[in-house]
Amino acid sequence: MKELFANVRSKHPLIHNITNYVTVNDCANILLACGASPIMADDEREAAAITAICGGLNVNIGTLNQSTIPAMFAAGKKANELQHPAVLDPVGAGASPLRTETARQLLAEIRFSVIRGNSSEIKTLAMGVGTTRGVDADLADQTTEATLDTQIRFVQALAAQTGAVIAMTGAIDIVADAKKAYCIRNGHPIMSCITGAGCQLSALTAAFITANPTRILDAAAAAVCAMGLAGEIAFRRMTQEDGNATYRNYLIDAVYNLTPEALESGANYEVR
Amino acid sequence: MKELFANVRSKHPLIHNITNYVTVNDCANILLACGASPIMADDEREAAAITAICGGLNVNIGTLNQSTIPAMFAAGKKANELQHPAVLDPVGAGASPLRTETARQLLAEIRFSVIRGNSSEIKTLAMGVGTTRGVDADLADQTTEATLDTQIRFVQALAAQTGAVIAMTGAIDIVADAKKAYCIRNGHPIMSCITGAGCQLSALTAAFITANPTRILDAAAAAVCAMGLAGEIAFRRMTQEDGNATYRNYLIDAVYNLTPEALESGANYEVR
Amino acid sequence: MKELFANVRSKHPLIHNITNYVTVNDCANILLACGASPIMADDEREAAAITAICGGLNVNIGTLNQSTIPAMFAAGKKANELQHPAVLDPVGAGASPLRTETARQLLAEIRFSVIRGNSSEIKTLAMGVGTTRGVDADLADQTTEATLDTQIRFVQALAAQTGAVIAMTGAIDIVADAKKAYCIRNGHPIMSCITGAGCQLSALTAAFITANPTRILDAAAAAVCAMGLAGEIAFRRMTQEDGNATYRNYLIDAVYNLTPEALESGANYEVR
Repeated sequence: MKELFANVRSKHPLIHNITNYVTVNDCANILLACGASPIMADDEREAAAITAICGGLNVNIGTLNQSTIPAMFAAGKKANELQHPAVLDPVGAGASPLRTETARQLLAEIRFSVIRGNSSEIKTLAMGVGTTRGVDADLADQTTEATLDTQIRFVQALAAQTGAVIAMTGAIDIVADAKKAYCIRNGHPIMSCITGAGCQLSALTAAFITANPTRILDAAAAAVCAMGLAGEIAFRRMTQEDGNATYRNYLIDAVYNLTPEALESGANYEVR
Repeated sequence: MKELFANVRSKHPLIHNITNYVTVNDCANILLACGASPIMADDEREAAAITAICGGLNVNIGTLNQSTIPAMFAAGKKANELQHPAVLDPVGAGASPLRTETARQLLAEIRFSVIRGNSSEIKTLAMGVGTTRGVDADLADQTTEATLDTQIRFVQALAAQTGAVIAMTGAIDIVADAKKAYCIRNGHPIMSCITGAGCQLSALTAAFITANPTRILDAAAAAVCAMGLAGEIAFRRMTQEDGNATYRNYLIDAVYNLTPEALESGANYEVR
Repeated sequence: MKELFANVRSKHPLIHNITNYVTVNDCANILLACGASPIMADDEREAAAITAICGGLNVNIGTLNQSTIPAMFAAGKKANELQHPAVLDPVGAGASPLRTETARQLLAEIRFSVIRGNSSEIKTLAMGVGTTRGVDADLADQTTEATLDTQIRFVQALAAQTGAVIAMTGAIDIVADAKKAYCIRNGHPIMSCITGAGCQLSALTAAFITANPTRILDAAAAAVCAMGLAGEIAFRRMTQEDGNATYRNYLIDAVYNLTPEALESGANYEVR
């Protein structure tokens, strides 16, 4: 994990984000916090040009619309053409036909290196339909110790089918390709009390894989560990008067101050 | 007030927000802070579908545009069809013909449970024209102890005309239907030094009324008290070096830590 | 500097912002922090009307798109017609043809009072083409003590050509018209670790020049000093656990608490 993070800090990857307007500022700041640089550009007429000057791409459908969807395709195709790593965050897939269908089409036309979502979003991609509680995972879909092995098999089947690393995050995170699965137990429940922890993680993942293009699976797992560890560190800073707004700042602060060594020692994962 | 807030905490209402991109992150985080869940979706092609999976709707015209206006109508009509509570925040009504006319048409075609705005915005809705200082209330329109009774009569007339609870917020907040008016004296002047206190309150109001659909007036008043009380608590945390950015975080933190009991004892209102 | 800032505090200028959705909340809060009021409106159908009720205009192309570009032109033309001060922030000019061309056309059709950008963006405007690292300045373009005189001549030539005050910010900031150049050495390197310090400065500049319409150059220089000084004050507040997210809040807080007297004594500039 240490070297993977050190590469982000030293290479300063430039990441093109087409993302939602809810959490976009946090995505930009977490990219800066980890050592990367963000650029946001979602007009179809410049999407490919911006992708071309960047090292990696992060596509997030959180507030997709008729103007940004074509930009997602244009950027994704250019990223594929240039062999840039690309992340898909299918926010709310399953919550509306537009989201489910857009995510499905993006997967059909673009090769993503990593797909990062909660269990309901990932299941929607796998099954074609899904149930979500808006942008949160349905309780029935969540990963527990009891369901872990089943979930891993499910995630690996989708990885085999799509050719992408799947990062299905929740109480226990699973990051897997068809052959190898990381189970990650970093993080804190309070992370679900801020908006955009998932979006931030997807941006962070784009930075990690762009700085480590030959080790996509390991880099994605390192990003998930880094985010979870930052979530733990941020929680320990909280006073009685602090709430989710301050926690949001502490989380990004923790990534800013995280060292490759601290990630190495704080990452809590097993490989199955 | 206690029970009304406890219902928000226990029911976790899912709120569909079509809101401006300036304060949207704060709206999402304050919804999470009070125990609700936010989803933002403003493309016409998914607006009704998202409304359908939510419990309540919050429409805010702060950065309305040709793409989001049709989504507001689609979501509003679906909310009416499903009898979901809906809030309208007519941000900047009176500042441009587009805003004034859009607000007027929304009121004509959709039944809102609550309309939440400052005095200039509310007057614009009532009179058809208005004067505003951008998104802030005109000084001449503000509610003072001297003008309180006149303002209440004005608000109640608009409530009778629209069928909506009117929440006209300012130094003194008036929340009223045609028969009953709450006068609320919570809050702190520094709340006008951050962007989006009003937007956040509208989102909070949507959560409160969605969790208490048979008590719209009382729930809206409770939301206004909760926001004002949080504003007071947040102000007490401030150090000499803190300014409006930190205050913004403290405000959401205060909602996060607010209990139904603290709301009950801290709410400062009278019924006229 | 003292009087220039005091005018902002006393006149509360209302600023129309057409800006990107990444840093828009920070732009709104920094305007409130300095004593101004923000309004954001980017639909072509209301842009001119909103400009008309404001005192100044801030155009930022950070996430330009087919819907907001026409609004920029409409607002700019109305500002010119009403002789309102206007700022252009050509974010990412040079990063894509769309950005470069839009900035070029804005300059061709609208008279801006101030153009505020990093060295790569400003060079792109001057040369017609440019190289940028996304939204950050290219290392080769940066202003150092060694290149300062050359940079000043370059900036003054562009000022003469465009008729605008040029604020080219970086490690050393140059704010100049054709005759007079401020070299400003306030600020702190950590300001480049948050998203939007430049965008915030452009918004602040719009407030300063709107409150001081007959002293555009001095007012723009005062805004740049104020931002840099706030950056220094914010840095001194940081603890070991604080990172860029908290720094972002401290920066706006520092503007909120800055007095005209503190600006006078803390401003670090020379006139060449």
